[in-house]
Amino acid sequence: MRALVLMSGGLDSTTVLAYAVSQGYEVTGLSFDYGQRHRIELESSRRIAEYYGIRRNVFRVDLTQVGGSSLTGDIPVEKGQFGRVEVPNTYVPGRNIIFTSIAGGYADIEGIETIMLGVNAVDYSGYPDCRPEFISSMEKTLRLGMARSQNLSISAPLQKLSKSEIIRMGMKLGAPYELTHSCYEGGEKACGKCDSCLLRLKGFMESGFIDPVEYETYPEFYRKYLENEKD
Amino acid sequence: MRALVLMSGGLDSTTVLAYAVSQGYEVTGLSFDYGQRHRIELESSRRIAEYYGIRRNVFRVDLTQVGGSSLTGDIPVEKGQFGRVEVPNTYVPGRNIIFTSIAGGYADIEGIETIMLGVNAVDYSGYPDCRPEFISSMEKTLRLGMARSQNLSISAPLQKLSKSEIIRMGMKLGAPYELTHSCYEGGEKACGKCDSCLLRLKGFMESGFIDPVEYETYPEFYRKYLENEKD
Repeated sequence: MRALVLMSGGLDSTTVLAYAVSQGYEVTGLSFDYGQRHRIELESSRRIAEYYGIRRNVFRVDLTQVGGSSLTGDIPVEKGQFGRVEVPNTYVPGRNIIFTSIAGGYADIEGIETIMLGVNAVDYSGYPDCRPEFISSMEKTLRLGMARSQNLSISAPLQKLSKSEIIRMGMKLGAPYELTHSCYEGGEKACGKCDSCLLRLKGFMESGFIDPVEYETYPEFYRKYLENEKD
Repeated sequence: MRALVLMSGGLDSTTVLAYAVSQGYEVTGLSFDYGQRHRIELESSRRIAEYYGIRRNVFRVDLTQVGGSSLTGDIPVEKGQFGRVEVPNTYVPGRNIIFTSIAGGYADIEGIETIMLGVNAVDYSGYPDCRPEFISSMEKTLRLGMARSQNLSISAPLQKLSKSEIIRMGMKLGAPYELTHSCYEGGEKACGKCDSCLLRLKGFMESGFIDPVEYETYPEFYRKYLENEKD
C-alpha cells in the first residue's frame, strides 16, 4: 500500500503525512518549488520528511510564469480580512490542479495507488480547488488521462475537518508541528498577523493545544487564551 | 471571443490555430518548454505564431523530473510499431493534464473563455489523455477548480477527425504546414521512419495533398503515392 503525500511544509499536509504513516502506508513525499516567495516552506517540508525518514521528491515548476498571485509575485499579501468569503489574492489559479496532475505523473510511473492531499473544505479560506467536488472530478480526470492508473485514488483525509479537529488529530498522531511553517510572510518566526497565522492560532486555541512554533506577536485572542491556560 | 491555443509546432495544433483564426477568435498561443529533446518544436511554434501575428506564451516546466518517456529522457524512440494499440513509450504520464491545467491558469487570469487543443481520438496513437472522455472530465475539473472560470470550455475541434481529414481542413484554411514539425527524431529534415512521420505521410497520401516538409527518406507507400501523383 503506497501513498504519495503532497507536502507543503504546513500544518495540514503534515497532519496528512502523520495519518498516512499511522495507517501503514509506504509513503513518498512530493513538494513543489513553484516560485513561492518563502524558501522556508521547502526547508520545513525537507525537515518533516527527514523526521519521518521518508523519500521526498521536489518538483520545480515556476508558477510566476502565470502570475496573478501574491504568493509568487510582488503584490503585497492582503491582511486583516480574516473571515471574508471571496477568493484571497494568495490564490495561484489552478495551483492544486497543476500540482495534482504532476503528482499523477509520479504515481503513474511509480505505481503508487493513492495521492494524499491536505486540502480541507471547512476552513478552506475560499480556494476553489480545495472543494470536495473538485477533488472527485480531479480523480476521475487522472484515471481517464493516465496509462496505468485506472484505479488511482485521491484521498483528502482532512476534507471535512475544521482546523481544530485537524490539530487534535495531528497531536494524537505525534505530528511534528514544531517543524511546520504556515505564515504567509515567511520570516524566521511566524508573523502572528496574516490570515494563515490567525487561522492556525484560532485552531490551536479551539483544540486546547499550544502551538509549538514561535511567533513575532500573538493576536489578542490567543494572548488571552495563553493567560487562561496558565491559570 | 478569445481562445488560448496550445501550440506544439506540429500539424494538429497548427490546424486548430488556423481553425480558431478562421472562426474569428482573438487567439493567444501557449507552448511548453518541457524538456523535449527537440528544440525545433519550439522553433516551429514560434514561427507559426509569427506567421499568424499572434501573441504566444512559452511556459517552462521540466517534465524530465518525472521521467519515464523517450521524448524527454535517454530511452531510444520505439520504431516500426506503426498501427500498434498499446501506449507508446513517447508518452509522458499526464502530460496533457499538466499542460491543460497550466493553460487553465492562463485562461483564468486573462479571462479567456476557450482552451483549444489539437488532440484527436481517431489517430490518437494510444495516448489516453487524448480521449473525448478525458477532455470532458478535464473541462469539468478546471471549471470546479478555478476562481473565475466557471464557464471555461475546452474545445478539441479535431477530436473526431482522421489525420487525412485534419489535413484537408488545414489545407482549406491555408495552415502553414511548411513550418510545422512532427518527427520524433527532431532533425533538420523529418526522418520519414518514426511513427509520427509515418502517420503524417499516410494522412497526406489519403488527403490527396503533398506534404511540404522535407524528409530524409520516404517510406515505400509514400514514394509510390508521389510517383502516381506525377503521372
